[in-house]
Amino acid sequence: MCELLGMNANVPTDIVFSFTGLVERGGITGPHRDGWGITFYDGKGCRSFKDPLPSCESQVANLIKSYPIKSEIVISHIRQANRGDVNLENTHPFTRELWGSNWCYAHNGQLSDYEIHLSTSRFNPVGQTDSELAFCWILDKLALKFDSMPEDTSLIFDYIQSLGSELKSFGVFNMLLTNGEYLIAYCTNNLSWITRRAPFGQATLIDTDMVIDFNQETTTNDVVTVVATRPLTNNESWHVMTAGECVMFKKGEMQHQHIPDET
Amino acid sequence: MCELLGMNANVPTDIVFSFTGLVERGGITGPHRDGWGITFYDGKGCRSFKDPLPSCESQVANLIKSYPIKSEIVISHIRQANRGDVNLENTHPFTRELWGSNWCYAHNGQLSDYEIHLSTSRFNPVGQTDSELAFCWILDKLALKFDSMPEDTSLIFDYIQSLGSELKSFGVFNMLLTNGEYLIAYCTNNLSWITRRAPFGQATLIDTDMVIDFNQETTTNDVVTVVATRPLTNNESWHVMTAGECVMFKKGEMQHQHIPDET
Repeated sequence: MCELLGMNANVPTDIVFSFTGLVERGGITGPHRDGWGITFYDGKGCRSFKDPLPSCESQVANLIKSYPIKSEIVISHIRQANRGDVNLENTHPFTRELWGSNWCYAHNGQLSDYEIHLSTSRFNPVGQTDSELAFCWILDKLALKFDSMPEDTSLIFDYIQSLGSELKSFGVFNMLLTNGEYLIAYCTNNLSWITRRAPFGQATLIDTDMVIDFNQETTTNDVVTVVATRPLTNNESWHVMTAGECVMFKKGEMQHQHIPDET
Repeated sequence: MCELLGMNANVPTDIVFSFTGLVERGGITGPHRDGWGITFYDGKGCRSFKDPLPSCESQVANLIKSYPIKSEIVISHIRQANRGDVNLENTHPFTRELWGSNWCYAHNGQLSDYEIHLSTSRFNPVGQTDSELAFCWILDKLALKFDSMPEDTSLIFDYIQSLGSELKSFGVFNMLLTNGEYLIAYCTNNLSWITRRAPFGQATLIDTDMVIDFNQETTTNDVVTVVATRPLTNNESWHVMTAGECVMFKKGEMQHQHIPDET
């Protein structure tokens, strides 16, 4: 299993506070020693920092903790390898261009007996993980279904939710996916989110001795949603997602939510 | 115009020496203040560091100068913008996946009246530069011509050289292109390369006060080729490429070379 972290905000926001908590799980408070990566969007462009080394020992992770890069959309991942060796090509997040946008993705979980069901043609994995193959399969499906990003975003949300359900049938599929404008989260068993807005309060990280007063860091118009494998703070109310739940955010606000009927 | 730097070696090699010279051209000895980027391969994976800030002022560039990442293939670029705004999505190198490999590319020069001739379908630009459109066009052409990387590399070399000639007809097209295994350079007017091998000597950077004794940094089996817009050292013999020249390296050694007949 791995740890996911996503952020979506209506203003460029730094993720140092959440990233500092996540990095501790990369070998200190968590066992996820098999690499880490983070992708920041800046307009339509994005930049990724990746390292197959544990995040708690990474010089590049130290740079990010000390050098806040402000962004409206961020996806981060720290890895505990199950399928695929520990190397750079197997390190999340993965990025591909579709419809002239950078799509970025990270996965937590493990799939079984999936290969023959996930054939791809246009998008092909570079590494050996189930995660990257599932990403390529999703993009292949999107490219076949739509010629461009549909204006009615419920169409693409519903389709991505259905693809998530299909992948969930092969095992555990917790996912963060973005095209730089929307952040989509799909949950099998471990994904929580929180939307912070005025009046902002204080938050205390679970994984390290750090408190932040968001009042000092924000303006009253800021809306910032954070999605993580497990809640990162212990004095706020996180929404814990259920199996099969899918949610889409834009500028920090929820756009679409699908919660399966209890059966 | 911009500055290009490429490296291809038969062992993982650090590029700190050459990168230190290049970075000076990003605002100190050269006027290229509109961003910079560098991509390192590690196996099939690659990681890019990019910044729309001048390289001479960039904290991320300082990290790379002090933290050698060893790699067999590197492409770097510092930008003086002509087409496209100064922002992250217009910052080279550009990367796309084709045939399960990461292809990476940077361009120096400027094209005119090219848009209607460079239509793309599968690969689409995210930004607004002539450079990225030309890259997408090359990959579209490659994907249409070959189903996978041809075993006879002269086939793909000859085809890429012909695509370079076509692009050169629209203006200045100096290019570095790699799939992580081969490094290809196409020259219109400014590109030079050098292959260093035993017996190694000393080299002195032109752009900053720095000398390196490659004897201390290498073993007798190392073969390291560096390609740059202009020679980076003043006491070595660089091969200055001619208009229309194209060359392909693998593990530091030249595999193919095309030099047009003088007319």
